[in-house]
Amino acid sequence: MTYRDELDTPSLVIHEDILKRNVARMAEYAQSRGIELRPHFKTHKTAKVAEMQKAAGSNGMTCAKLGEAEALVEAGVYDDFFIANQIVGPIKLKRLVALMERAKVRVAVDTPEVAAGLNEAMAEAGKNLDVIIELNTGQDRAGIKPGAEALQLAETIRAEMPSLRVIGLMTHEGQVNNTDGVEGMTETAMAAGEDIVASAELLREHGFDITVVSVGSTPAAFVTTTIEGVTEMRPGTYVFNDRNYFKYGINVEDCALRILATVTSRPAPDRAVIDAGSKVLTSDTNPANPGHGLIVDYPDAVIARISEEHGVVELPESARGLKVGDKIEIIPNHVCPTVNLQDELYLIRNDSVVEAWPVIARGKVR
Amino acid sequence: MTYRDELDTPSLVIHEDILKRNVARMAEYAQSRGIELRPHFKTHKTAKVAEMQKAAGSNGMTCAKLGEAEALVEAGVYDDFFIANQIVGPIKLKRLVALMERAKVRVAVDTPEVAAGLNEAMAEAGKNLDVIIELNTGQDRAGIKPGAEALQLAETIRAEMPSLRVIGLMTHEGQVNNTDGVEGMTETAMAAGEDIVASAELLREHGFDITVVSVGSTPAAFVTTTIEGVTEMRPGTYVFNDRNYFKYGINVEDCALRILATVTSRPAPDRAVIDAGSKVLTSDTNPANPGHGLIVDYPDAVIARISEEHGVVELPESARGLKVGDKIEIIPNHVCPTVNLQDELYLIRNDSVVEAWPVIARGKVR
Repeated sequence: MTYRDELDTPSLVIHEDILKRNVARMAEYAQSRGIELRPHFKTHKTAKVAEMQKAAGSNGMTCAKLGEAEALVEAGVYDDFFIANQIVGPIKLKRLVALMERAKVRVAVDTPEVAAGLNEAMAEAGKNLDVIIELNTGQDRAGIKPGAEALQLAETIRAEMPSLRVIGLMTHEGQVNNTDGVEGMTETAMAAGEDIVASAELLREHGFDITVVSVGSTPAAFVTTTIEGVTEMRPGTYVFNDRNYFKYGINVEDCALRILATVTSRPAPDRAVIDAGSKVLTSDTNPANPGHGLIVDYPDAVIARISEEHGVVELPESARGLKVGDKIEIIPNHVCPTVNLQDELYLIRNDSVVEAWPVIARGKVR
Repeated sequence: MTYRDELDTPSLVIHEDILKRNVARMAEYAQSRGIELRPHFKTHKTAKVAEMQKAAGSNGMTCAKLGEAEALVEAGVYDDFFIANQIVGPIKLKRLVALMERAKVRVAVDTPEVAAGLNEAMAEAGKNLDVIIELNTGQDRAGIKPGAEALQLAETIRAEMPSLRVIGLMTHEGQVNNTDGVEGMTETAMAAGEDIVASAELLREHGFDITVVSVGSTPAAFVTTTIEGVTEMRPGTYVFNDRNYFKYGINVEDCALRILATVTSRPAPDRAVIDAGSKVLTSDTNPANPGHGLIVDYPDAVIARISEEHGVVELPESARGLKVGDKIEIIPNHVCPTVNLQDELYLIRNDSVVEAWPVIARGKVR
């Protein structure tokens, strides 16, 4: 009996051999470049993968929300976090102070308002906080502009906020995801990397002791880190990979996480219905690939439409043998939110389920 | 102190007055038409709203997955379910048999293969099961064609599957969601309703005792149910409503569920970043409305882009006063998957949080 029969569907399975290879590859790369690898927790949200990343040499973890770091501290795996996000409001600031009792924490800032809130909370708690200025290198999400504006924010913090210390710069060069292939991605990523390194130099010229120059994003991981002056990388998706990254050379064999699903209806010769819809696959799409995920054994079939509990698959001639009860394995378009929908991931070794891993940070949006 | 200060963000809040009005309105309508209201659990996934629906006169609940019904039985609220989906595979069939020990259950079938699996499981367990034939009235998801094909499936079940009894027909006329306004929706819904009623008549002419003629979907709820011969309706979304239904006359005042979020960055005059991204809003979009949800106090602002933990809001002139730390309330595009991402919903009465409702069926995709 293989895992395909052991598990009810839909279920998320992790192929251990692929996961191990992915974790090792990025760790070895970071070590070869002398760069700190501080992986982003958001992709796997499990204590087990965090342990593997730590064993491979990562002493710090990146989180998007305080709740993720709290879950990891609770699990006893990590005690060194970078919250790569703005922490705003009295409830969260109290939680940050509490987290600092249990772990080393650094946080992002991108406006004087956010920094002022942090400074006030630290002064009240009698603590000092290391902050990292978030730069907008082209994603146009959060972040201050590189260069003079970043310097001005750093100066304001130094002059007016004695409980904060500016130790570095970060960027999430997420704009690379909007490029079409390796060439365009590389160009975009290099521009972002050069921007952050130049800003770090500027701040150093003005007396700031900038020890962290941190870049994000899995597709650009092997690009931005070639720039002299980058000290830290924060990739997340690399542990599992997903279909969104096929345009950058990722293959089926690199994708550790698959969705095991069952054909529940064959209402027409060219149509199958599966038991995985948006509550499993998410509604994340990617212009580079049609449909809502790749069916590994039937790459020409298209998961053309999804509703919450149904996936409607358009079948090419070659896939019309699919029948009710058949199991299929799907590589999701975007693995991070897919994981966030599940309570457990199932680890597969030698075609059998060997462990169920709780998704300890599922739904930790605060 | 109002709930806006009491709650950390992002959080899902339920305005009790609106919820009560929505629940009462649909119940009163169903009673006035003499139609059974068997609401779909998928929207709210909470025991509390299920209790309200029961108190308003619904003795049975519709579920998409066995796991939802199991959660409700565990909560002790309902013991009469329609699983409006195909149940396939030995693990699920065992769970179905176990559920039947604790509740009255009827299930959908749309192919002889699905029916045969059910029949075998029932024979083995020494049970009989009432089944409802799912018709495809135009959604082209699951379902058999109305008329002769539906009759043939019913005949096959009667002749070959002694543990099953065909008691009715159902359709999910989800194709109404692809129409642009009330007029097109009404026409599409009426066609679907007439199809199912005609098929019910055909089956009766062939000796089947069809007592259930069941239609789904909130937007068509007041349309298909006007057709003589429809006996049951299964709307779900009506309890909360969402932005997807604005094109059918739903207003802000009808939307009971809102997402409370905080502005975490103001990186440019025309751009705000909020702490709600796709892990809160989902990636569900609707061509009728731009962006990823409606900001109630700033209806002209557009949540133009989302990543997992960030929403990027394009601000018109009138909204440029928004500053870091401000709270906003968002009506999601599609409320059902939004609820599925959270562990709790917060009930608001007189501007205060009065209860936290666990989302008992969150993630019950099996």
